[in-house]
Amino acid sequence: MEPIRIGVLGLGTVGAGTVNVLRRNAGEIARRAGRGIEVTRAAVRDPGRPRDCDLAGLDLTGDAGAVVDDPSIDVIVELIGGTSAARDLVMRAIAQGKHVVTANKALIALHGNEVFTAARAAGAIIAFEASVAGAIPVIKSLREGLAGNRIRSLAGIINGTSNFILTAMQSGGQPFDEVLAEAQALGYAEADPTFDIEGIDAAHKLTILASIAFGHPLQFDRVHVEGLGAVEPADISYADQLGYRIKQLGLARRTDRGIEMRVHPTMVPKQRLLASVDGVMNAVLIEGDAAGPIVCHGAGAGAEPTASSVVADLVDVVRTLTTDPDQRVPHLAFQPDRITDVPVLAMEEVESAYYLRMLAEDRPGVLAELASILGGLDISIEAVVQREPPRGVSQVHLIMLTHRVRESRMNTAVAGIEASSCIEGPVTRIRVEHFEAD
Amino acid sequence: MEPIRIGVLGLGTVGAGTVNVLRRNAGEIARRAGRGIEVTRAAVRDPGRPRDCDLAGLDLTGDAGAVVDDPSIDVIVELIGGTSAARDLVMRAIAQGKHVVTANKALIALHGNEVFTAARAAGAIIAFEASVAGAIPVIKSLREGLAGNRIRSLAGIINGTSNFILTAMQSGGQPFDEVLAEAQALGYAEADPTFDIEGIDAAHKLTILASIAFGHPLQFDRVHVEGLGAVEPADISYADQLGYRIKQLGLARRTDRGIEMRVHPTMVPKQRLLASVDGVMNAVLIEGDAAGPIVCHGAGAGAEPTASSVVADLVDVVRTLTTDPDQRVPHLAFQPDRITDVPVLAMEEVESAYYLRMLAEDRPGVLAELASILGGLDISIEAVVQREPPRGVSQVHLIMLTHRVRESRMNTAVAGIEASSCIEGPVTRIRVEHFEAD
Repeated sequence: MEPIRIGVLGLGTVGAGTVNVLRRNAGEIARRAGRGIEVTRAAVRDPGRPRDCDLAGLDLTGDAGAVVDDPSIDVIVELIGGTSAARDLVMRAIAQGKHVVTANKALIALHGNEVFTAARAAGAIIAFEASVAGAIPVIKSLREGLAGNRIRSLAGIINGTSNFILTAMQSGGQPFDEVLAEAQALGYAEADPTFDIEGIDAAHKLTILASIAFGHPLQFDRVHVEGLGAVEPADISYADQLGYRIKQLGLARRTDRGIEMRVHPTMVPKQRLLASVDGVMNAVLIEGDAAGPIVCHGAGAGAEPTASSVVADLVDVVRTLTTDPDQRVPHLAFQPDRITDVPVLAMEEVESAYYLRMLAEDRPGVLAELASILGGLDISIEAVVQREPPRGVSQVHLIMLTHRVRESRMNTAVAGIEASSCIEGPVTRIRVEHFEAD
Repeated sequence: MEPIRIGVLGLGTVGAGTVNVLRRNAGEIARRAGRGIEVTRAAVRDPGRPRDCDLAGLDLTGDAGAVVDDPSIDVIVELIGGTSAARDLVMRAIAQGKHVVTANKALIALHGNEVFTAARAAGAIIAFEASVAGAIPVIKSLREGLAGNRIRSLAGIINGTSNFILTAMQSGGQPFDEVLAEAQALGYAEADPTFDIEGIDAAHKLTILASIAFGHPLQFDRVHVEGLGAVEPADISYADQLGYRIKQLGLARRTDRGIEMRVHPTMVPKQRLLASVDGVMNAVLIEGDAAGPIVCHGAGAGAEPTASSVVADLVDVVRTLTTDPDQRVPHLAFQPDRITDVPVLAMEEVESAYYLRMLAEDRPGVLAELASILGGLDISIEAVVQREPPRGVSQVHLIMLTHRVRESRMNTAVAGIEASSCIEGPVTRIRVEHFEAD
């Protein structure tokens, strides 16, 4: 089957990330979607400017309308942002029955009601997972994964810039202005950060999530919005003493009297997951009457995290266009004829770090003997701790942390240790795993 | 449009929860799905036993096959568990082209390859979100929301019983056997807890997640499985001293040499989100090459959390059967003609607790005056703290935490406080929100 042909409007951070992800993962994406997805044209303001993606085979133009109107293009990815040109181009694509994937929260929050009506009339799909919380599939989770619930409330850290600033104020005790300047220097805040620090960006996203949660039309102008400016280092410190963290939250809640929608600095008890979301990360807490609280946490912005959601929407579109509707999403994610028989490693082949605990004689030379067993197998030791065992026997607990080593080699080491006369009984081992910063 | 008619096999904890959620939220569910969803028949082993759901209008039978074969039933919900009767009934439903929603991880992990092949051939939908991690929409997130990623690894706390036991050992220092007996008394562990504490249940779930992540066939027998039995209180205490928590993890990872699949007690650095998942909660960390790390956290078991995923699958089925495929999932979750104009509260109408910070004269009587302003408006004070302000001026920082109060009343209070002669400058206020335990 011919690949689906995509036209991208805008090749900034997210546009370049989208091209990169589609190309790098083309094989796996086609195995999941049932058809290849290929970016053939892109519209940019300045075709001469260097881009953060490979432009080979990509027809660049300064005329976005020409991409929208190109009959060879099946799906438009709108990554221009803003609400004027973007809106015109999206409506123009819809008028031609073309499907649109967008990351544009302002467009959806302010003009979504009109855009969706036009799209339904024209039989066009509009997908906008990337408009809220970057890589976190929060729209899909709320719209589909929690569709059985009466949603009680949602609360999100949905503006990375604000959260970066509050986290830095928290850890360094610096005032807002200093931290903002630092965030701008690091590229975590725009030169004009108004939308982020005044809460407008979060309010756009909250508008979208609240409508999906509660089933009312998008109404951005009913969100109460306060920025970060009033929070001083003293407040962060006092909050800490009282057991709280200050977070810029988007909050929507169902009450007997109506729906609350608000964005403002908020004190959250320290032991809540939302309180431990630091830096530019995003997280959304959704409380459903059946599900209870669900928290999703991940990167809220950036080239590839946002592209992850753009491409997921593209896969959704392609699955809808391509497959039998009853089997739209393959059971195991990959199309049944594209499931591969990659080898599964035997446990002996797996690498891991280890915690080892053993009962050892309390005399000189024991550690040297154990270290020589491990060293002889090229297993390096990260830490050794000796402790009185809880029951007060004459031996001591010897605890070792090792660096990563293949299981088969650790099996040999443990057998050697257990055979040693200075060790009594079996060695307890627990594998140690480190994960990418979450 | 006539409601979709559902037959439920098994009315235990999850079955009763499913009936309750479908009935309680019938209105919202129909607004989302585009059509009502009605349980008309249920099969149980003992039709005389009392059930945790309203049985009115529900035809109960001891003959599960009769429910499957009933031509008036459109979709079968299989909640019997196990792999013998459940498998036969699911295959029998598929043979008739009936759609099946199931929470049965053993069935999918052990027989999914065969079940899916039969379902595709018969044009039947098989949905199994409830089989992994209860209320967390992790299958949907992985299969659709992260479809653009090459998945690097996933790690999950996907057995609530094991996590409850480890959390209790951590907090109380008790040995495994004692905690297990306590968990059984509380209903958090089965009378025969083998599947949970030996890691089999987690391995079933890991088998499913790994195939969805990496695109290989389900192969439960290749998962390396170790139970909790070897972990002693001393290990939990030493791990704590070294900066770790011990968690029973299901781990799947892509390496150059093949796929790792393993379930075993694992030391996780304390600062990782997975380390702070306590009690019966579940969480799954997914690392995608584009998205980076995504963590989803929520209830992993229980009547209504699991029912949440069963009903979400039912809504998916109904949306697929009912609507124009291009508009299968409504943009704002609810069908466009079923969006309601519920009132959005003006901020003055919103209730919240408050943190107030002000610069006050350091003399007797100030607190009494402020307390009387708040008391006169029926605003109760949770805490008052007085602190030297950072800049060393003669006044002090007075910090108050109030209980929940309507914003309009707080506006009056703040105006009153700011007019008082013992207060200098404006009052800083930050709203305080508590959330349901996550």
